[in-house]
Amino acid sequence: MTANWIDNQKNLMLFAGRAHPELAEQVAKELDVRITPQTARDFANGETFVRFEESVRGCDAFVLQSHPAPLNEWVMEQLIMIDALKRGSAKRITAILPFYPYARQDKKHRGREPISARLIADLLKTAGADRIITVDLHTDQIQGFFDGPVDHMHAQGQLAEYIREHYGTENIAVVSPDSGRVRVAEKWADTLGGAPLAFIHKTRDPLVPNQVKSNRVVGDVEGRTCILIDDMIDTGGTIAGAVKILKEAGAGDVIIAATHGVLSDPARDRLAECGAREVIVTNTLPIDDSKQFPTLTVLSIAPLLARTIKEVFENGSVTSLFNGNA
Amino acid sequence: MTANWIDNQKNLMLFAGRAHPELAEQVAKELDVRITPQTARDFANGETFVRFEESVRGCDAFVLQSHPAPLNEWVMEQLIMIDALKRGSAKRITAILPFYPYARQDKKHRGREPISARLIADLLKTAGADRIITVDLHTDQIQGFFDGPVDHMHAQGQLAEYIREHYGTENIAVVSPDSGRVRVAEKWADTLGGAPLAFIHKTRDPLVPNQVKSNRVVGDVEGRTCILIDDMIDTGGTIAGAVKILKEAGAGDVIIAATHGVLSDPARDRLAECGAREVIVTNTLPIDDSKQFPTLTVLSIAPLLARTIKEVFENGSVTSLFNGNA
Amino acid sequence: MTANWIDNQKNLMLFAGRAHPELAEQVAKELDVRITPQTARDFANGETFVRFEESVRGCDAFVLQSHPAPLNEWVMEQLIMIDALKRGSAKRITAILPFYPYARQDKKHRGREPISARLIADLLKTAGADRIITVDLHTDQIQGFFDGPVDHMHAQGQLAEYIREHYGTENIAVVSPDSGRVRVAEKWADTLGGAPLAFIHKTRDPLVPNQVKSNRVVGDVEGRTCILIDDMIDTGGTIAGAVKILKEAGAGDVIIAATHGVLSDPARDRLAECGAREVIVTNTLPIDDSKQFPTLTVLSIAPLLARTIKEVFENGSVTSLFNGNA
Amino acid sequence: MTANWIDNQKNLMLFAGRAHPELAEQVAKELDVRITPQTARDFANGETFVRFEESVRGCDAFVLQSHPAPLNEWVMEQLIMIDALKRGSAKRITAILPFYPYARQDKKHRGREPISARLIADLLKTAGADRIITVDLHTDQIQGFFDGPVDHMHAQGQLAEYIREHYGTENIAVVSPDSGRVRVAEKWADTLGGAPLAFIHKTRDPLVPNQVKSNRVVGDVEGRTCILIDDMIDTGGTIAGAVKILKEAGAGDVIIAATHGVLSDPARDRLAECGAREVIVTNTLPIDDSKQFPTLTVLSIAPLLARTIKEVFENGSVTSLFNGNA
Amino acid sequence: MTANWIDNQKNLMLFAGRAHPELAEQVAKELDVRITPQTARDFANGETFVRFEESVRGCDAFVLQSHPAPLNEWVMEQLIMIDALKRGSAKRITAILPFYPYARQDKKHRGREPISARLIADLLKTAGADRIITVDLHTDQIQGFFDGPVDHMHAQGQLAEYIREHYGTENIAVVSPDSGRVRVAEKWADTLGGAPLAFIHKTRDPLVPNQVKSNRVVGDVEGRTCILIDDMIDTGGTIAGAVKILKEAGAGDVIIAATHGVLSDPARDRLAECGAREVIVTNTLPIDDSKQFPTLTVLSIAPLLARTIKEVFENGSVTSLFNGNA
Amino acid sequence: MTANWIDNQKNLMLFAGRAHPELAEQVAKELDVRITPQTARDFANGETFVRFEESVRGCDAFVLQSHPAPLNEWVMEQLIMIDALKRGSAKRITAILPFYPYARQDKKHRGREPISARLIADLLKTAGADRIITVDLHTDQIQGFFDGPVDHMHAQGQLAEYIREHYGTENIAVVSPDSGRVRVAEKWADTLGGAPLAFIHKTRDPLVPNQVKSNRVVGDVEGRTCILIDDMIDTGGTIAGAVKILKEAGAGDVIIAATHGVLSDPARDRLAECGAREVIVTNTLPIDDSKQFPTLTVLSIAPLLARTIKEVFENGSVTSLFNGNA
Repeated sequence: MTANWIDNQKNLMLFAGRAHPELAEQVAKELDVRITPQTARDFANGETFVRFEESVRGCDAFVLQSHPAPLNEWVMEQLIMIDALKRGSAKRITAILPFYPYARQDKKHRGREPISARLIADLLKTAGADRIITVDLHTDQIQGFFDGPVDHMHAQGQLAEYIREHYGTENIAVVSPDSGRVRVAEKWADTLGGAPLAFIHKTRDPLVPNQVKSNRVVGDVEGRTCILIDDMIDTGGTIAGAVKILKEAGAGDVIIAATHGVLSDPARDRLAECGAREVIVTNTLPIDDSKQFPTLTVLSIAPLLARTIKEVFENGSVTSLFNGNA
Repeated sequence: MTANWIDNQKNLMLFAGRAHPELAEQVAKELDVRITPQTARDFANGETFVRFEESVRGCDAFVLQSHPAPLNEWVMEQLIMIDALKRGSAKRITAILPFYPYARQDKKHRGREPISARLIADLLKTAGADRIITVDLHTDQIQGFFDGPVDHMHAQGQLAEYIREHYGTENIAVVSPDSGRVRVAEKWADTLGGAPLAFIHKTRDPLVPNQVKSNRVVGDVEGRTCILIDDMIDTGGTIAGAVKILKEAGAGDVIIAATHGVLSDPARDRLAECGAREVIVTNTLPIDDSKQFPTLTVLSIAPLLARTIKEVFENGSVTSLFNGNA
Repeated sequence: MTANWIDNQKNLMLFAGRAHPELAEQVAKELDVRITPQTARDFANGETFVRFEESVRGCDAFVLQSHPAPLNEWVMEQLIMIDALKRGSAKRITAILPFYPYARQDKKHRGREPISARLIADLLKTAGADRIITVDLHTDQIQGFFDGPVDHMHAQGQLAEYIREHYGTENIAVVSPDSGRVRVAEKWADTLGGAPLAFIHKTRDPLVPNQVKSNRVVGDVEGRTCILIDDMIDTGGTIAGAVKILKEAGAGDVIIAATHGVLSDPARDRLAECGAREVIVTNTLPIDDSKQFPTLTVLSIAPLLARTIKEVFENGSVTSLFNGNA
Repeated sequence: MTANWIDNQKNLMLFAGRAHPELAEQVAKELDVRITPQTARDFANGETFVRFEESVRGCDAFVLQSHPAPLNEWVMEQLIMIDALKRGSAKRITAILPFYPYARQDKKHRGREPISARLIADLLKTAGADRIITVDLHTDQIQGFFDGPVDHMHAQGQLAEYIREHYGTENIAVVSPDSGRVRVAEKWADTLGGAPLAFIHKTRDPLVPNQVKSNRVVGDVEGRTCILIDDMIDTGGTIAGAVKILKEAGAGDVIIAATHGVLSDPARDRLAECGAREVIVTNTLPIDDSKQFPTLTVLSIAPLLARTIKEVFENGSVTSLFNGNA
Repeated sequence: MTANWIDNQKNLMLFAGRAHPELAEQVAKELDVRITPQTARDFANGETFVRFEESVRGCDAFVLQSHPAPLNEWVMEQLIMIDALKRGSAKRITAILPFYPYARQDKKHRGREPISARLIADLLKTAGADRIITVDLHTDQIQGFFDGPVDHMHAQGQLAEYIREHYGTENIAVVSPDSGRVRVAEKWADTLGGAPLAFIHKTRDPLVPNQVKSNRVVGDVEGRTCILIDDMIDTGGTIAGAVKILKEAGAGDVIIAATHGVLSDPARDRLAECGAREVIVTNTLPIDDSKQFPTLTVLSIAPLLARTIKEVFENGSVTSLFNGNA
Repeated sequence: MTANWIDNQKNLMLFAGRAHPELAEQVAKELDVRITPQTARDFANGETFVRFEESVRGCDAFVLQSHPAPLNEWVMEQLIMIDALKRGSAKRITAILPFYPYARQDKKHRGREPISARLIADLLKTAGADRIITVDLHTDQIQGFFDGPVDHMHAQGQLAEYIREHYGTENIAVVSPDSGRVRVAEKWADTLGGAPLAFIHKTRDPLVPNQVKSNRVVGDVEGRTCILIDDMIDTGGTIAGAVKILKEAGAGDVIIAATHGVLSDPARDRLAECGAREVIVTNTLPIDDSKQFPTLTVLSIAPLLARTIKEVFENGSVTSLFNGNA
């Protein structure tokens, strides 16, 4: 006989970068798998080193990394993990980036700028990633930056469910903090039963770059509970300013909901003091104690990630995860 | 002596697909070059054939193609022209797509869809294009779909100048026809001296896919001259509907301005009868007699394209084209 | 435990472009599978849209498209389908092109021409095709244009079988319509029991391009039933002219056999009136009523395609399909 | 000032593999350049080493290699030279292969075969070749195997001129040694003033692979001076056999003309004794004394190569080289 | 039903180039598989031809080739075999190179040199190799030349075991023949129980290139049994010279151990006469009778290769092969 | 006329990352060019942003970045700068990495490790770098990790010159701190007039991983001034330990010389207190005040980098830079 035949089973292995161990543990628990043991450390001069403690040959590898500051460290760590998996003969490598880094640099805002979000996609591909799982991209078009399958998951359903439960859908308005998120706000409005829509209009003087002349609310918010939505909250300046403007415009309670709690300094103080009744985010990024404040609610993204990994591994339909009960 | 030395001059050659000869002639005239003579024809079974009548060896090639219906024909023709240039030893190949095809398919709207706008970028690269010049992409992120330089030009300055001249900036409002273009409308508003902003809010029932329940204007338009803006007008349904809604909301004159006049049937009738005072587009796409109607104004995009080509050829700054005196 | 193990089954899914639904149905029936339901339509401006109605994750995808006029439409549709499969996580993608488009542009006939047949191979690769199944390429070398496996099937056996049954192998001659197909005719002659060979010699004046001075038969055809063979019949000019020359040279009945019935206008009239007793083609391309005529016989290529798909899916030997009992 | 400007001249450098130094010298003399000095040697275990003695930075490099036996050695030497040029910062690298290796393996003749001619194109690309110059490919389609410009030159004009001068065009016939070269023979016939055409028809039993049952001449050769043409003569079996068959069919003098004189053993004896009056080849391959015989004429291909290199370097038109006075 | 499901088994197939049939047979026997039958031959002009006699569709292919002189022949044969497997639809292709060719040309020793070891890696990738198995690379960094998994095996354990058994570890010294192998010698010393270390120091005059002024032993070897180690022995000049210097320095017996017995002429005579008590190599390269001499011992590398293939096929851990009982 | 011709001059532009502004200024001054003004900053969440203030279209770009801790930040910044240059139409992009990051991870030391040095090369290529300039790679083979020209410069000449001037070449010994640098030490010994050679031999127990049992000097150092050399000094443990061992072995003064002064904590204290008379490094990495100590000497690498850039720009020979008068 010329050939030996064996069954061609495949096995799921979960790998986790060091940026957000708590999320990795949650995902592992949901999946009922162990995180593959590894040695990961930084050398004195800042070089990152990774070595897996078990054979990865032939596995279906899922490499979870979160991307808080220092973000470039975590990008490089994930690339290095992927390289080690490729050279260690993993069969398929899926990079999981709950918060896609550099998503806001998705175009040249002016000449001679990079498109860093595309660069990130290319770096992942070069290192050896076959596919990407991510959550609530800053713009949907970033899916097209990667030459391969991208499973783009949405936390909106989970966030909206929370709001429905805690605030109902009566007398609310959905508000976009600027003119670029109105489309997303419209989807929220539909999800919340056809709520009215508003946004904050910034006026700029075209002769004075980067300076906002005035802000005004476009749309009807007076007396309404405002659901102020965004994909991410970074330093919180825009969103806290929006609360102030809404209040001035006669809004009732303001609830802030966003998928990614970047919460860079001084977001904590701004949000705690801006007058919003509650700020709701998910844990796509780690939110340590220094970032906590009384009105902050953090929902876990782990169940969504775990279900996605499971469907990808078993070749099920990820699209169905968005159905009513997902 | 081992080597022969010669001066390494470069020469600009302009090539034109058959989709829009009038625009090509205008660009050639602005540049004061001749369109390179070629044989281009379709065989009986629909295959496209192209052959250049002059040597293209070592040239800096600019390949202009417009993309009206039948759009796929013109895509393939441009790809074939680029292949012939690559194999004919052109030094550098710039594909010019005044209207970028498949720009609206720039993401997976739902699962199991293509991202055709990325595919187009990859096909151009594969055929041999080194760079792209295009005008007013449906979303700016499409720049990042191409792995190379993209000169993304804007017709807004030209359109806004026309409006300022003919309608002034008093008592106007800038209106986005839907929630996805509010950011663009905001830029228009700044350009037109800080005009108020509005948009049409569509309400959908999340349980009944693709069905709009109602439309309402968000923002103040009553008594104002409304500048209704968009990147393209295809069948005109959305934009004509927007005029109606604006009128119902008490708007004064409505002026429609868009870069790309796709004007697929029945756009002509819809626009002619929708009640807009004037519809202004550029000729990035050919607008033949059957598409004309009395209130339609067509501005030529040729000067902008010609200046861009010149700057690219001479390694000047394209960014400066947007300055006041460009 | 670190890993979850599952069986790694694979499933065949058949996808069909819109160019030739009848052939797709025949292939599906032979394979006893359903064509995967999809939404496919053209937008008003000519853009093609495709969306699959079922999950394609992990499948072994076979994408059948035929390429009649308007050929470029069907090329783009197939590329877009492949892109959607790639992004939808199909495991392996096989493009089936029963008639390979642009096969005649397989070299630069003169300077500054494209090699469109290579371009097509590269476009398929770029979109995401892993492999190709095709029938009777214009030249065998086109296999080498694709960087991956090409299963190049032949309809000659089926056509020759038909001829043997209906005309026997006595007193026949195999005739190539021009000097470029003599090698193929030789294979036919061997298959038909060592029949004599002839071809039509065209004389050209090298100083007057593209003008044939005279045609003459080289080889002995007098009184013989001539099997006039070709890979494709497009407008039918060459082949109908060949019948006339054969008749003038004293040939008996003339039977035309070709794999691909392109039958562009005015092929129908030319073939109906050229004096051939029968014209035999396969349905690699759709042959609608307007192309039919009394002496035309159309054999179905579906069984050959279905067997090939089955062998590719099951990792059987395609080579064996050409044996007697395959 | 931010930038330093310098003139961007380019210089031609000629590099030569060790397979055929005489041809390299002829080309260098025609171009009036020196062959770049290099160290090239084989280590004891067969590894090839190359080092250039002068800086190649920024040059327009032309790398001439001939491919006689041991052909694989010369392929690897050329690849290694190209790698050294790429890493030494040559600006553009043109591989010159007067006889393209593995040209006959341009398709899968049967299943599970390589397409080595495509492999060679890919290896050249991988090593760093930007373009190819070659002469009389076995099939024109091989041009399409390389992803870049291929200047495909023809020696036919030179060979035909020689025949016209020495044998005139009266009472001749052009003969293809088999059914696969009839198209090429047809071009020769046109060049030689419309001479009649013939070919040798080989009959095979389809049930007994690779065995020719009989050979017969198709076409009229009786009493005519036969110009028996081919692209290459390897062991000479086919071509010498063709002479015998032609003689039996009553042909007059037989003149053999082919571009590539591979002349593998026992070609010399076969050709010397086959009865042909003269055998004419070019020196795309070295023809050392052991291969010489009285009726062999060798024309130099160096002028054609030198003119091509010059045109490529100066961005002239290579197509024009085929005009009347080329 | 839309889909057909089948089990996705995989099968191991072993392919062997013609360079070292004895090793291939040993590996096949260890694995208990048959070498896949193939036709492999050289045409008269030196072109290599390969065809497999069985379907390779979907197999896990292992392509073993050894690389003695004429090394370039065997490189090309392996590339052609890989191309045939790729085009014949093998699922995964592993190239096995027991002795990696051109390993010594792993950097530019001076300017304008190739890096042929990287070129070899790229050629393998281009032909279609997915992964590499090799033994004792000249430098470990060559692993990084290949963009994919490299299983880099070591024969040192086997060689050291032999030495321990036959010479013990008392009163020995491990000696590197030059300054570049001291690190490797250190590993040997550890394996052999912490033996002392020495190396031969060559002094060069920096003003006279490539000329060694003197050799001296650094380290203590007097009266000790010296284990003189290297990765390969080519012409044997360095290693035989080292024996002489060691003897002059008062060494006892000298035992030479190296993985790769290249043994190019005049290695046999040099080694036989250099005074070494025994020369131990493996059969990564064929050692025919003409290379044999009384003090030469050849160990078989086949068990190590076979175990590696088995682990790769079954997705086991190759790393564990180096454990105590491997 | 079809074409416009212009002179094709090229211009050098120098770009500098933020890691080591002092070195960039020195290089700019040597070249007599200005560093191209840019905006470079980090967003609050760690994302890096770069924008050039001048057009880079058509320039010959040199992108200098140093790689101290936090090294990953500087890697990403350089990648982003290169992306911006590629998209801004720079003609050629040369990445300058005076200290190549991750150079020590140039192979898999054990299974399932990355080869990060190769990854870095691939990331640079992906971002758009055409070529690399670097200094004293940890191993020369890293040159081969990049698919393009690498100008690998050496600081050894400059360091050796300094030692000759200050210490002469009498009664010295060159010492490698471990077995892996003996070859490099041998080159130093030749440069310093044939000095004796020694190295520190570390003994390990193969059963107890990563634990050194003992260190001993191999070679004669007693009473000699020892030049202890290395490519880099990171935390200084090995090198400071080597000084101690040398002193114990009776060495005279010990002088440490290394190209790259990484000097991670606690290198400063270790080196200051180890007993070495002088520690000499270059400024390929910034050495701020906190790293200074009395016996430290820092030579500037800027002249070498500037001369290399100039030669690359002008297509001169970099190889000649190593000659006496370069």
